[in-house]
Amino acid sequence: MSPEEFRRYGKQVVDWIADYLSTIESYPVGARTRPGEVRAALPAHPPEQGEPYEKVLEDVSRVIMPGITHWQHPSFFAFFPSNASGPAILGDLLSSGLGVQGLVWAASPASTELETVVVDWLAELLGLPARFRTDSTGGGVIQDSASSSALVALLAALHRTSGGEIRAGGITRRYTLYVSSQTHSALEKAARITGIGADNVRVVDVDPLTLAMDPGHLRSLVTEDIAAGAVPAMVCATVGTTSTTAIDPVAAIGPVCAEHGIWLHIDAAYAGVAAICPELRWINDGVAEYADSYATNPHKWLLTNFDCGVLWVADREAVTGALSIMPEFLRNQASDSGEVIDYRDWQVPLGRRFRALKLWSVIRWYGAEGLRQHLRTMVSLGDEFAALVSADPDFEVRPHHPFGLVCFRPLWTDEETMALLERLNDSGELYLSHTRVAGRVFLRMAIGAPSVTSDHIAKAWATIRRISRDMRPA
Amino acid sequence: MSPEEFRRYGKQVVDWIADYLSTIESYPVGARTRPGEVRAALPAHPPEQGEPYEKVLEDVSRVIMPGITHWQHPSFFAFFPSNASGPAILGDLLSSGLGVQGLVWAASPASTELETVVVDWLAELLGLPARFRTDSTGGGVIQDSASSSALVALLAALHRTSGGEIRAGGITRRYTLYVSSQTHSALEKAARITGIGADNVRVVDVDPLTLAMDPGHLRSLVTEDIAAGAVPAMVCATVGTTSTTAIDPVAAIGPVCAEHGIWLHIDAAYAGVAAICPELRWINDGVAEYADSYATNPHKWLLTNFDCGVLWVADREAVTGALSIMPEFLRNQASDSGEVIDYRDWQVPLGRRFRALKLWSVIRWYGAEGLRQHLRTMVSLGDEFAALVSADPDFEVRPHHPFGLVCFRPLWTDEETMALLERLNDSGELYLSHTRVAGRVFLRMAIGAPSVTSDHIAKAWATIRRISRDMRPA
Ligand SMILES: Cc1ncc(COP(=O)(O)O)c(C=O)c1O
Ligand SMILES: Cc1ncc(COP(=O)(O)O)c(C=O)c1O
Repeated sequence: MSPEEFRRYGKQVVDWIADYLSTIESYPVGARTRPGEVRAALPAHPPEQGEPYEKVLEDVSRVIMPGITHWQHPSFFAFFPSNASGPAILGDLLSSGLGVQGLVWAASPASTELETVVVDWLAELLGLPARFRTDSTGGGVIQDSASSSALVALLAALHRTSGGEIRAGGITRRYTLYVSSQTHSALEKAARITGIGADNVRVVDVDPLTLAMDPGHLRSLVTEDIAAGAVPAMVCATVGTTSTTAIDPVAAIGPVCAEHGIWLHIDAAYAGVAAICPELRWINDGVAEYADSYATNPHKWLLTNFDCGVLWVADREAVTGALSIMPEFLRNQASDSGEVIDYRDWQVPLGRRFRALKLWSVIRWYGAEGLRQHLRTMVSLGDEFAALVSADPDFEVRPHHPFGLVCFRPLWTDEETMALLERLNDSGELYLSHTRVAGRVFLRMAIGAPSVTSDHIAKAWATIRRISRDMRPA
Repeated sequence: MSPEEFRRYGKQVVDWIADYLSTIESYPVGARTRPGEVRAALPAHPPEQGEPYEKVLEDVSRVIMPGITHWQHPSFFAFFPSNASGPAILGDLLSSGLGVQGLVWAASPASTELETVVVDWLAELLGLPARFRTDSTGGGVIQDSASSSALVALLAALHRTSGGEIRAGGITRRYTLYVSSQTHSALEKAARITGIGADNVRVVDVDPLTLAMDPGHLRSLVTEDIAAGAVPAMVCATVGTTSTTAIDPVAAIGPVCAEHGIWLHIDAAYAGVAAICPELRWINDGVAEYADSYATNPHKWLLTNFDCGVLWVADREAVTGALSIMPEFLRNQASDSGEVIDYRDWQVPLGRRFRALKLWSVIRWYGAEGLRQHLRTMVSLGDEFAALVSADPDFEVRPHHPFGLVCFRPLWTDEETMALLERLNDSGELYLSHTRVAGRVFLRMAIGAPSVTSDHIAKAWATIRRISRDMRPA
C-alpha cells in the first residue's frame, strides 16, 4: 500500500471509527452471535489475490460488528472498563505509523526516553514514592498487562530472595507467595509460570465485611511457612480487588513483609489511578513506606486503550537481575556504557512497541485536571447508582469504595440472580458481569466509559427494575 | 475528545503518517541523539491543563523524531526487519477504535473467532500440519512475541512432561531444555522465568560451517541427562537463527525427541513465513512429522506491525492445562459449555487486544500472491547484495539462506570491523547491526522493508565500500 493509498484509506478508517463512536448507542451492547457464527461467515481459506481495503471495511461492518460486545458503549458496565479515548487511539496510531522497535535504547532512543518520562509523570500524578522514579534506584516500565506486571514483580522478588541463585539454578526449594481469596487469579498464574506452583500460593484470610486481607493471619502463615522450611518470596496486596474493589491494608501488611524481608507487590490494576485525585490518595496508605513494586493499568480506568499497564519497582536491579541477557547481536555501545535503560530487560518479550506515545497523548490532551475530572465523574456516577439501588427494598447493595464499581443483588436465589443477569445482557440495553461474595452471587456495575452520563445510569437502573419485575412480579 | 474532534485530528495524524512514509528517505536512518537528550527536551512534570492535539504532533516532529531510528526506512538493514504496512496499520487502528477486550470468547466473540480464522489461514499458507489447526486437537494463537511463544511452549511442555504435576507442585526436580549456541536468548530467558534455571539449558553443538544443531550431540546430551536423573522438558530447534538464519535439522532432531517423549518447539520467528512460497517450504522439513509447537512472527517479515507473533500447538490441552484458571468473575455460559476458545488460557496476560484485525487486513490486502511476491523480492535482493560483496576481494561473505539476510565482513580485525559499523551507522545513510560467528565479528545486512529496491541495495554497498576505503585506503 503506497503512502497515498494509506492517506486515502486511513481517512476512511478514521471516518469509520468516528461514525462508530458517534452511533455506538444504536448497537445492542452485547454481541448476539452464537459460538461459531462469525467464523462460519468468513472464508475457510485465505484469498489468493489481494483485495481492496473497502472490502475489509465492508466485512468489518457485515461480519465482525454483530459479534462485537461494545466495551466503549456508555451502557457497558461489565468486568472493569477498558477505556479508549481519542488521544490514546491517535498516540497508538502514531506508534503503528512509525513502526519502530524499542527493544534496546539504541534501537530507537526516543521510544525508551519518552517511556521514562511518562512513567515518571504518572508516578508523580499518583504521588508514588521517590524511589519508584527513574532518577533513584527504581523506575517504571510499560507492560502489556497487570498479569505481566505481577509476573515480573514475582521474578524480581525470587531473584532478590534467592540472592540471585535462581537465575542459574532454578527453583530448588519451596518458595511461597501470599495472596488473599480476593486477589486476582493472575497471581496464581504467575506462581505457576515461575515454577513455585499453585500449592505454594498461600491464601490469607480476609475480613468478612470489607474483604480486606487480614495482616494477623498473614503473619501467622508466614511464621508457619518459615518454620516449615519454606522461603516466603512475595506478598501481593491489592488496592481495588477485581470482585468488589476491596483494599488490602498495606500499612499493616508492610511491617510483616519488612520484618521478614519479603517483597511487597501492590496490585492496583484498576483502582490505582484514582490516586490522581488528592482526595483519594489515601488508597495508597502504606505504599510509600513499604512497597517494593506497584502496578496499575492506564488501559483500565485511565482512558488509554489496551495494552498499557505500568509497573514501578524500587530496585530496578532486582528486575534486570532476573531478566537481563545480552547476546552478541544486541550488544551496542550505549548499553555497554550503562548510561541508558534497555526496557527489554524489564519484561518477558524482547520486542517492544512504542506504547509511551499513547499514554503521553492522553496525559497531554486531558492534563492532570482532565484526568481528575474523568475519575471524579465516574466516582459520583457510582454513588448515584448505589443510591438508586439502596432505595429499593427488593435489592441489596454492598458498601462500595469510590471507584465507580457497585455490587448489588436482588433478594433472590443465586440461580435467579444469574437468570436475571442473562436476561439483562440479552436485552442489549446494558451489559453487566457478576461475582460471588461469601458464596452469594452479586451483579457488578462497573462505570467507566468516558461517554457515560447520569442518564445512562438512570436508564440502566430502570432496565434492571423493569426486567426483574417482569421475572418476578411483586 | 469527541467523535468529531477525533475525526479531525485522526485525519491530521493519517496525513502526518502518509507524509512521513513518503519522505522517510530524507531522514538519517539512525537516530543521532545522545543518551538523555530526548528526555531533557521534555518537561519534567506532567501538564496540569490539557493541550490541543496539535501540540503533541508538533512535539513528535520537534522532540521525538530526532530520537527515532527509522525501522521502516528502506536503508534500515539492522537486526531483523519489523515490517509495518498500510493495511496492518489500518487493522490496528480499527482495533484501537473498537476498543474491545477478547479475554474470553464471551467478552467479544468476533475477536476470538477472527483470530481462529486467521491463524488457521496462516497455518494453511505455511503448509503446517493439520494437527496445528483449530479443528483438530491443536490450534494457533496470536502472542505479542516469539519470546512469549517460547515461554508458553515451554510451560506446555513442562505440564505434559510432569503429567500436570507442576501446576500445583511447582518445579521439584531437574528439568532440562535443549538449545544450540545459535538459539535465541529468549529460550534461556524462558528457562529462567519458568524456574528451570539457566544451568539446565543444555547447549547442543552446531556444525561449524552451517551452524545447524548437531542431532548426534543432542542425543548424547539427552541420554547423559536422563542417566543423571534429569527430565528433558523441551528441545528448541530454530528455523532461521537470529545471528545468521541457520536452520536446525528438524527431521533429524525429531526422532530424538520422539524416542524420549520430549516436546519439540520450532522457533521460526523470522524465517518461518518464507514457507508461504512453495519453493521455500523445504525449510520446514520434519515439522509435519515431529513438531509439538511452531512459532513465527508476522511482525518481522510479514508486513504486520508489532506486536503479532503466532504460536501453534498440536495439543491445545497442554497449553490450557498449564495456563487456565477460572475465577468466578470470568465464569460464563459459553466458557462452561466448552464450545468456545478462551485465548487468555493460551497466554501470560489476561487482557487481549483484537490483534487479529491487522493480520487479517494484511492477508486480505496482499493475498497469498502478494505475500509471496514480497518475500521473493527480499530473497532476491539478498542474493543481489551477496553477489556484490562476493565480487570484492577485500570482503568475506558467508553462504546465506534465502531469507534476505547476508552476513559479511571486511578482512580486518574485529575492532576495525566494529569501527566500520559505527562509521556506517553514523553516516545516516544506512543502518546495520552485527553478530559474531566462530569468534569473528560479521556485519548483518537484513533486507526486509517493503519499500526497499535494488537501488537501495546498490547504494548501501557503495556506501560500505566508500567508507571502508576511507578508513583503510587500499
Ligand atoms: C486487581 C486486578 N489485577 C490484575 C488484573 C489483570 O489484568 P490484565 O488483563 O491487565 O492482566 C485485573 C483485571 O481486571 C485486576 O482487576
Ligand atoms: C529466532 C528468533 N527467535 C526469537 C526472537 C525474539 O523475538 P520477539 O521480539 O518476538 O520476542 C527473535 C528476534 O529476533 C528471533 O530472531
